[in-house]
This record gives sequence, structure tokens and C-alpha cells, in this order.
Amino acid sequence: MTCNDVRVKVLHYIKDKSLIESGERILVAVSGGPDSMLLMHILNGYKSELNISLVCCHVNHQLRDVASNRDELFVRNVCRQIGVPFVSKRINVSALSKEKHISIEDAARQLRLGALYDIAEERKCQKIGVGHTSDDTMETFILNILRGTGRKGLSGIHPKRGKFIHPLLCLKKREVLHYLKNHHIDYQIDVTNWRSDNRRNFIRRELVPLIEKKFNKRVKDNILQLIKIIIDEEDLLSTLTGKTLEGLQKERDEGIVFDRDSIKALHPAIQRRILIRSFEKLAGEMRLNFKEIEALRTAIISDCSGMVFPYHGIIFLIGANSILVRVESRKKEVREDIHACLSIPGSIRFQNRYLIKTTVLEQINGNIDSRDCVYYDLDLIQQPLIIRTRNNGDTFIPFGMHQKKKVKEFFIDAKVPFWERDEIPIIADEKGILWIAGLRRADSAKVRKDTERILKIEKRYIG
Amino acid sequence: MTCNDVRVKVLHYIKDKSLIESGERILVAVSGGPDSMLLMHILNGYKSELNISLVCCHVNHQLRDVASNRDELFVRNVCRQIGVPFVSKRINVSALSKEKHISIEDAARQLRLGALYDIAEERKCQKIGVGHTSDDTMETFILNILRGTGRKGLSGIHPKRGKFIHPLLCLKKREVLHYLKNHHIDYQIDVTNWRSDNRRNFIRRELVPLIEKKFNKRVKDNILQLIKIIIDEEDLLSTLTGKTLEGLQKERDEGIVFDRDSIKALHPAIQRRILIRSFEKLAGEMRLNFKEIEALRTAIISDCSGMVFPYHGIIFLIGANSILVRVESRKKEVREDIHACLSIPGSIRFQNRYLIKTTVLEQINGNIDSRDCVYYDLDLIQQPLIIRTRNNGDTFIPFGMHQKKKVKEFFIDAKVPFWERDEIPIIADEKGILWIAGLRRADSAKVRKDTERILKIEKRYIG
Repeated sequence: MTCNDVRVKVLHYIKDKSLIESGERILVAVSGGPDSMLLMHILNGYKSELNISLVCCHVNHQLRDVASNRDELFVRNVCRQIGVPFVSKRINVSALSKEKHISIEDAARQLRLGALYDIAEERKCQKIGVGHTSDDTMETFILNILRGTGRKGLSGIHPKRGKFIHPLLCLKKREVLHYLKNHHIDYQIDVTNWRSDNRRNFIRRELVPLIEKKFNKRVKDNILQLIKIIIDEEDLLSTLTGKTLEGLQKERDEGIVFDRDSIKALHPAIQRRILIRSFEKLAGEMRLNFKEIEALRTAIISDCSGMVFPYHGIIFLIGANSILVRVESRKKEVREDIHACLSIPGSIRFQNRYLIKTTVLEQINGNIDSRDCVYYDLDLIQQPLIIRTRNNGDTFIPFGMHQKKKVKEFFIDAKVPFWERDEIPIIADEKGILWIAGLRRADSAKVRKDTERILKIEKRYIG
Repeated sequence: MTCNDVRVKVLHYIKDKSLIESGERILVAVSGGPDSMLLMHILNGYKSELNISLVCCHVNHQLRDVASNRDELFVRNVCRQIGVPFVSKRINVSALSKEKHISIEDAARQLRLGALYDIAEERKCQKIGVGHTSDDTMETFILNILRGTGRKGLSGIHPKRGKFIHPLLCLKKREVLHYLKNHHIDYQIDVTNWRSDNRRNFIRRELVPLIEKKFNKRVKDNILQLIKIIIDEEDLLSTLTGKTLEGLQKERDEGIVFDRDSIKALHPAIQRRILIRSFEKLAGEMRLNFKEIEALRTAIISDCSGMVFPYHGIIFLIGANSILVRVESRKKEVREDIHACLSIPGSIRFQNRYLIKTTVLEQINGNIDSRDCVYYDLDLIQQPLIIRTRNNGDTFIPFGMHQKKKVKEFFIDAKVPFWERDEIPIIADEKGILWIAGLRRADSAKVRKDTERILKIEKRYIG
């Protein structure tokens, strides 16, 4: 591998993976260590050929006092020499770590990514270049296995993700070092960067060397081959999940709704991925762990229903026929006014979702079969008219029947998912339930030939 | 975890994975070590409930002299005590290792599996039970990653494969030891068995303890979770590959044939799996490695054609429009008699695949448009009539044309895959090619109004 090969490899990789478009401005994250120094030199060398401009950014983690500042100064000086605009940003890792009770590594990661995003924004950079090599992807792979990952975590570092690009993933660490040596490019060692995580250091400095010594020398290459296979298979599984999801989910006001039988019929591998995807769609940064997914999946494929699984602010509700995934806080908002009086004539907004309107007529003026409109003999109604949601023990005589029925049983028979049952408006007078709005009216207060004043009640969904 | 839990777990696992059918006889492979001793005791304890009978088999690897014989004697005595029929078999691992130039571990594995199969056959056992635990599956997972595996190797040890069943995969090593201790069941330590591989010992005794100490204690559980996910995803990918393969491959006499464009259109992950499957179908025990698969795949998706890839006795031939996978030796068989004289009238078997028949007629007695039958004016033919395959530089004037055409170009235009071109019978007289059998006749020696003797040549495929 000559130095020329290294440059050609990187350039080829940038083109092959479409990492950079002509005319873009690239923010290069430079710690001062070998990888990021190489990245800056190569991008700077090809800047006319790629038709790009560069800005160098150094994030000072301030974790090692003098040494941190020395790294910053080092990068600043190099940039001045090679004529690349330089920006630095200091972040207070220790403070965030204490404040949020997270590890130094996690705090550093959050602040560093935030700083890079902000500077890219300020400096109008379309991409952020980071100097990860294939050694990093291999270490990430081992790290993810050891700390417990799903399959996705096995696919290592991606060549691009959002604004971030990793043009050196095609290189090995030793190629980087060889190139820097041959080109007399200086770098700092032991810089504070994203790879200063103790667990990662353990993998790099103890685990991998031990395996190479005792097991076989080719272990890095073996893992990189496996990652290539996994990346493609992950892409296939992900595409497959996406297509399946598209056909299955119904995005509703209340969240994502699935038909339970359709989920049951899927392959377990796809079931897992669909649950994870639905969760991540609503939960953002949070992740479900394996035990949570399996508990959920086992519940779904079981015969039970009416189960509620709250995870990290997201709720999965498993009804007899459907599954609802929604954000936890929604529920509380909705349930604020669940009991109100209805004036006649008049109208009322109920739970911010329905408009209920009453009018008094002399004659029926619409379709009596409508689900969203019912007529009563007003003189048979014992006011006040109440609108509310269901109560425990509610019963009514459904229209055309003679026997009382529990509202709960009615909901079950009508296949109303349990999470919707508490939101359906019920209209009642002093004598009892008149209408389970939109679903079934009671047998009482029917309009007869000699009815003089007709009460019309309408329900409209206003989402 | 109480001891009762251990038994319940194993029984549940046997039922859940359908490892044993009622009425079966199980050969239990017992080294004398803790896992196999537990397996024998549990199966023996449940033998009425499962309605099975047992035979215990000890394979003496003869690698540790006195100790090997002590293990054998130990198992024999236990079997006598608990009333399980006992068989032992001695294998000569060192001899096979030297003879075949393979490692002691590989030789031991081959001989042990062979011995177990033979005894299962002799003793009419439907299943062979082996005492692998979840620790073994976890070690196999790490072993496979380190020595370079595809995704399939990540799914660890399967609960059943062929006659072999692994009812203890649901248990951890420490559950096994705990149970044995509580039940005062004796076992030998350091027995020679399938787990005495040096690389496996390195993983068990050095690598995993180091990771547990320096990284986290839960590493085994994390890996077992990952394996569960991978097993399901492997099943899904494998089913998907199977279905795709079914729709694509044409099994022909000469091997497996694919339409090249259909393969090109597939996802790279499925392309890889289809190549591996086709290879394994013909190659049996041999495996393609990643570099071989990628070389093949890259060639297929390129624009070149006429490439031949021989791997471990199997040949992949990549034509312009199709791909043939076949066993290497076929070719030689076929090419033995490629030049023969045809008597008139008469018939000849050609390459064991075709029957060529000549007759002399006064009148045409069949369809002149048939691809497998041609007519000539016998008096215009300059005998002897020859049957052969193509030669370099062959030309002919195709029927209805005036210009000579190279046979090679004719084959290309007619989209005959290059591996078929050397097998197509060509009939010629002293003046040149008369018929590219089944494809095109030459313009020469046409039957005319005044033709007196007609030569009819027929080709029949007898494959």
C-alpha cells in the first residue's frame, strides 16, 4: 500500500458512497490526532478536484487542562500553515456529566455533536467530516456486542448519517499512520476525543491485541468482512420492515394503530423491528431494550387483551383487535373535561375532539339511520342533559332491545379498542343513557306519532 | 433458580422446540463431563413421561491415555448403576489428523460425529442428544466471529440439526453445576470432548473472564439475547432466499442455471445468499469464503461475460445472459467423443446426450420448419458425413444467406451461453458445415425439384 493508494482509496470511497457533492462546504472535526489530521490533509489536497471548501473545527473538551489547550493550539497552527479557516469551541463536559448524572463519555458525546452541528450551521457547512477509520468501526462492532445490542448495532459506523460523513472508513489505522509518517505530517497523541471512552480503550488496547496474539492475526479483517455482510443484510431487513410497516400502520390522531391479527401473522423478526420502529418514531432518542420488546411481542401474540405497556414515555395499548402506540402525555390532555351539561338548544366542544349540538324541531329533518345524529321525544327526557365518558357499571337498553346491557360489554361486542372507550362521548339524562355517540342510541325517549317537540343531537369529529 | 426449575426448563425446551417425539430411542453422547452427565440424568428421569428409551454412548478419543480410559470406565459404571444401556467406541484421532493433515480438533470432530451416527444406526436411535449449554452457544458465536464467518455462523448452535438434538441449550453452565452439586451427581473434569479445542478454551478461560472483569458482568446474557434476535432474522433471510431461489433457478441436466439479469436485479444480500446456496447444493461440505463470493458477485453484476470461476470442485460460468453452476468433473465426461463419422443411413449417440439419425428418402416426409430435423440433397453432399463440436475459426453460410458467418458470432447472436457452445453437435461434410444441430442449417445442399435422393438428419435429446 503506497501513499498514493491511500489518497486514491479515500477519493474513490467519497465518490462511491456519495459523501460529498460538488460546491459543498465541509466542516472537518479535527482533534489533532492522526485520523482527523489525515482527513484534513487529504480533503485539503483534493479541494479543487472535489470543488469544495473547508472549515476546520476543534472541540476543546477541557478534560486535561494544559494538554487540552495544547491540542487546540496545535490544530490552530496547522490550519494557519495550510490555509484552512479555523474555529474552536470549548465545551464543559464535567458540568453536564454532573448535572444530568451521565457518564463523562456520554456528556462529551452530546456536547461535541451539538457543538459541531451549531458551527456547521453558523458557517453554512453542508457536511461534517469525521476521521473514523475501519479500526473504529471494528471496535464499535465489538463494543456493541459486549454492551448488548440488537442487529442494527452490528453494522458498525455508517459512511454517512445526517450531516456527518466518514471518508476514512475505507482505511486501516496502520495505513493512516504510514501515510502521516511518509508525508511528515505531525499529530498529537492521546487527544481527548470520541474514542477516549474507557470501554473502547479496553477493546483497542487489551482485547484486540490479546485476540490477535492468542487466536489469529486476521481477526480485524474477519470482523470487517462480517460487517460488510451485515450492513447489506441490515439494509435488506430494514427495507422489508419499512414496506411491511407502510402497509400495516394507520397513523391516526391518537397515535399509530395496527390491526393486531396482521401483526400476529408476521415473522417474529419483523414483529420485533416493527415494534422498535413504531416506538422510535414517537420516542426520538430513546431505545427499547430486548426484554421490553420481547415482553411486548409475547403479549401481542398471546390471547389476552386490554394490556398497557408504558416504556420511556410511550404507551403500547393492546386491544382485542388492534394495537395503539401513542405518546403517554396525550391521555391526560384528553381527559380533562369528562362531564358537562348540554343546553337545549346549544352546542359544546367535548375533549377538544367532538362538537355536540342539540336542536329542537317539530319534525325529523334528516336521515334517521345516521350514526352521528339521533332524534328523541324531548318531552320524555328528564333534563339536565349530560355529556360525559363512561363510568364503571354503566348500562343501557340498546335501541330495539328490551334487556339492559352493560356498556362495557357493548364496547367489547362493537370491537371498540379499550383505549378509545374512555373517550367516546355518552349523552344521558336523569333517567339514564340516551346515546353512546356515534355507536348506538338507547331505546328510551323514542319519537312517536304524537311527539310534539323533537330533540336532535348531532356529533361531529373536530380532531 | 431451584433444581426443579432446571428440570422444568429442559422439559419445556424439549417440547417447545419439538426435539423428541414419543416412542423414540435416544442415543445420549456422554463424555463424563458435567453437561452430558446432567443430560443423561434428566432424560433418564423423564423417560416414562416422554415415552422414550435411552442408549448411552461414550466416544473414547484416546488422547490422554489413562485419563481417557478412566472417563470411559466412569461413564460405564454410572450407566450400570442407573440402568441405561452403554456403548463405547474408540477413535484414533492422532492417526486421522496425521493422515489428512488436519488439526487434532477437526479430526476428533469428524471421527466423533461418524462414530455417533454409526452407533445411532446400529442401535436404531432416532435422535442423538448432546449436552451443549448456552455457554457453548455463546462461545461458538465468539469463535465464529473471530475466525471469520458469514451471518449464518452468528446464530450459534441450533436446538436440532439432522439427528442431533441439544436439549440443554436453555441452561447456563452454572445452572448445570448447581444442579449436579445438589443432586450429588458425580462427573469427570477435563474430559476430552468437542470443547477441548484450544481456541475454544482461550475464549472460555481467558477472553470471556477478561471481558466480564473489565467490561461488564452481563456480557454472556447480552450475547445470548443477540443470538436470539439473529436466529430469527437468519430464519427470515433464509426463507426469503429460499423463495427467491425457487423462482429463479432452473435445474437442468448440466447444473443450476440462472437468468443473469434476474440475479443482477436482486439485493446484494440476497445475491450473496443465492450464490452460497447454489454452491452448497452441489458442493456438500465445502464452503465459499467471503472473498470468493464477492469476486463472483462483482463479476456477475459487471458487464463482462464468458468468465469461469472454479471453486472447490464447482464451476460458476457467467454467460452474457445466464449463469451456470455445475460440478467441475461433468465437463470432462461430456467431452470424450467429439468427432465421429455418421453412416448413411444410420444413427449415433453423441456425447451421451444426443441421438443423431440419418435416413435416405425419396420425398420430404415431415415439417421442414422443425429445429430438430433437416433435409439435404444427398447427391450434393461430399461424404464422409462428420459429427463434431465446434472448432476455432468455424464458419458457415446460414440458410437463406449469402455471406459466411463465424460460428462463434452465430452463437453469440443466438444467445447460446458459452458453456453450451462446446456441446452442440455440428454436422459437416467434406465441403463444410451442414447443420448446427437444433439451431440453424447451412445454405448448402438444399433439396430442389429435381433432387433424387434426400438425406434426412434428425437430432433427439436423450440427456
